[in-house]
Amino acid sequence: MPVSTKPVKGTRDFDPADVSLREHVRGIILECYRSYGFNQIETPVMENIDLLENADGGENLSMLFKVLKRGEKLKLDQPVTTENELVDYGLRFDLTLPLARFYANNHAQLPRPFKTIQMGYVWRAERSQKGRYRQFMQCDIDYLGVSSPNVEIELIQVTADALTQLDFKGLTVRVNDRRILESLANHCGVAEDQVGSVLVTLDKLDKIGIDGIVVELTKKQFSQNCIDKLTAFLQAYSAGDVQLDTIANHISGIDQTVLSELTHIINTSNAVANERYRVEFDMTLVRGMGYYTGPIFEVASDEFSSSLAGRGRYNNMIGKFLKSTTVPACGFSIGFERILTILQERGVQADTSARHAAILYDPGNTDNLLPLLKAADTLRKKAGVVSLEIKQKNLKQQLASLKKVGITEFCQFNGDVSAISFKPLD
Amino acid sequence: MPVSTKPVKGTRDFDPADVSLREHVRGIILECYRSYGFNQIETPVMENIDLLENADGGENLSMLFKVLKRGEKLKLDQPVTTENELVDYGLRFDLTLPLARFYANNHAQLPRPFKTIQMGYVWRAERSQKGRYRQFMQCDIDYLGVSSPNVEIELIQVTADALTQLDFKGLTVRVNDRRILESLANHCGVAEDQVGSVLVTLDKLDKIGIDGIVVELTKKQFSQNCIDKLTAFLQAYSAGDVQLDTIANHISGIDQTVLSELTHIINTSNAVANERYRVEFDMTLVRGMGYYTGPIFEVASDEFSSSLAGRGRYNNMIGKFLKSTTVPACGFSIGFERILTILQERGVQADTSARHAAILYDPGNTDNLLPLLKAADTLRKKAGVVSLEIKQKNLKQQLASLKKVGITEFCQFNGDVSAISFKPLD
Repeated sequence: MPVSTKPVKGTRDFDPADVSLREHVRGIILECYRSYGFNQIETPVMENIDLLENADGGENLSMLFKVLKRGEKLKLDQPVTTENELVDYGLRFDLTLPLARFYANNHAQLPRPFKTIQMGYVWRAERSQKGRYRQFMQCDIDYLGVSSPNVEIELIQVTADALTQLDFKGLTVRVNDRRILESLANHCGVAEDQVGSVLVTLDKLDKIGIDGIVVELTKKQFSQNCIDKLTAFLQAYSAGDVQLDTIANHISGIDQTVLSELTHIINTSNAVANERYRVEFDMTLVRGMGYYTGPIFEVASDEFSSSLAGRGRYNNMIGKFLKSTTVPACGFSIGFERILTILQERGVQADTSARHAAILYDPGNTDNLLPLLKAADTLRKKAGVVSLEIKQKNLKQQLASLKKVGITEFCQFNGDVSAISFKPLD
Repeated sequence: MPVSTKPVKGTRDFDPADVSLREHVRGIILECYRSYGFNQIETPVMENIDLLENADGGENLSMLFKVLKRGEKLKLDQPVTTENELVDYGLRFDLTLPLARFYANNHAQLPRPFKTIQMGYVWRAERSQKGRYRQFMQCDIDYLGVSSPNVEIELIQVTADALTQLDFKGLTVRVNDRRILESLANHCGVAEDQVGSVLVTLDKLDKIGIDGIVVELTKKQFSQNCIDKLTAFLQAYSAGDVQLDTIANHISGIDQTVLSELTHIINTSNAVANERYRVEFDMTLVRGMGYYTGPIFEVASDEFSSSLAGRGRYNNMIGKFLKSTTVPACGFSIGFERILTILQERGVQADTSARHAAILYDPGNTDNLLPLLKAADTLRKKAGVVSLEIKQKNLKQQLASLKKVGITEFCQFNGDVSAISFKPLD
């Protein structure tokens, strides 16, 4: 049977043009993050299976790639009842859990606060669909050890700055706070262990509308009183009556400190933005993961409805592996693969401002080779890329091929290095 | 049971200083490769298990990390007799096999010849020992589609160039040719299927000497005539009597074309090197993998006995997955992790020529925040890194912490942006 040469399902091969663009985007984001004083760390691709499965991974846990035990540890002659008797490691499904482990393992040597960048692949065995990959790049910044809302302001600023440098226009950063959502749930009389379930439904508001919310909550057997209160609130919200400064009139028992923190974050961020982007309160922003504890954010642009970046504050996770310590933490992630898809659809190519030249030569003439090698070396040190290429029979085809890999000018070597002179390749 | 926060056995966490150095080295190597017209590609971390196991992977196959099947494909209720009923993917153990798959999958769209760079992690479940990791970076260039020995000259040049830019002095590139080794084996009357076994022994010459070679070959039951002929050759070689231009006197039936190719490679490379590095014929260089078909190389430096880079020509592998096509191929790999270890032992740090400044401020004073954010932004756009840091009680400790992440100057914000002025941090 012939072996398939396709990449593994849901993964991709990247050719030179793909890698150039990925490196270009990666470079812009990294430079921007670094200029705000964030520093990059890196963790291994595999983590212990216990660690992965003890996480608040939600549905990611069902999408784990698990790694088979090796050697004597793998006992195939004994009956197996659970998968986990067979495996010891798994591929990471995000970069937040590895960060928590990294922090626990290294915190004594780390600066405090710790402003960190992670850019790396994660793996999820998602059902295949357009734009969903099983290996994809995550691009996270995290600010550990500080509870001041100034952290949120900086994270919003640096993320909007990076996206602006990538030529995204009309950016809107939508901001909410988990504590406001929880106050709303309390206000509606939702039991504590049902808050998550209500928020999952609320998250669908823009897709299913208030009527859809009512149907879903009824199905979930929430009380009529609860559903009525939520409906009343959502109707007021849809009518534009609920703003940050009036929300306390609509939700009983809401914490004033939370509101003034959020107001500080939004107002200061907008003032810094100076109309390059907008920062808005959005009561319907929920975000999936249950581990958020405070402000949450998401970025969209006028051109693209889908989210380009998002995340929020999660004060209870980083300390998870440290005995009796809590570590305030807030993070923002840029959706690297989505950005790449958009830029590729726009026809963006990586910057190649340096010279990209090719010299075509005949390898039969060995006497001329040494002076040619030396001349190419001198040109290269002065001016970027100089690729020596053996002359092919079909010049037109060869030039087309060189153009594909970014060569912009060429020269046919006639044996005399002093005659090397480049013509544009077009 | 508390979950371990150590990285998986044989793998490492990289802190900001580690990542800076790794990125710095990676950048120098990439830039150098690119300047010769090589272009980067990338393949997924996982490959199909059939592909991995059909490779000439040698002992790497016993060190595979295999990935458990998921969902319905995994049948735990049925008796299992082999590991491979349980797995469908594996982590790549090198970048050559993925390159062969990539080429087969994409060759129609690729330029010919194809000069390619791969920098990526590979995984091997090696026994733990100092300097051996289970996840490590490989750093390969490959030149596909050209059989001219000028390819070897270019690969030697670009590799020595990259290592020189990384400040390695006294580099020696040792060169041999598989076909010469095979001629030697033929000359000694070794049967074709035993050539590999003789070469494995010969590879140990510098460790066990001629006497050790004799003992090992006797144990392997090679004929006395064969052992005598090999001993005679090695004695002449040790006495310095065997050079490229005299080797035909010592090995009957050696191909003159092979010798003149190798002479061309070595002489031209030395002339290009212009004494920055040396290129030498070394008859005892074997290299482990059986897939080489022509010239092989290895780089050492005066300071370090271990190999810094190596590989060679392998004309029979890239076409493996293409029906009835052979694709000439030659490659060179830099030992990235070894280089990193040496540079870290030397105390090399990543270049930070741009300004790395911190402004310490009091978050209590919200009125001053906006002008501070704007001033920091302006400074940042002009001059590199400007990190805003909340003032801590212990200034000395805070400054020490900032120094660790590369901050070189700082300022304590007094509320007046016009008074921001940086002092060196030392």
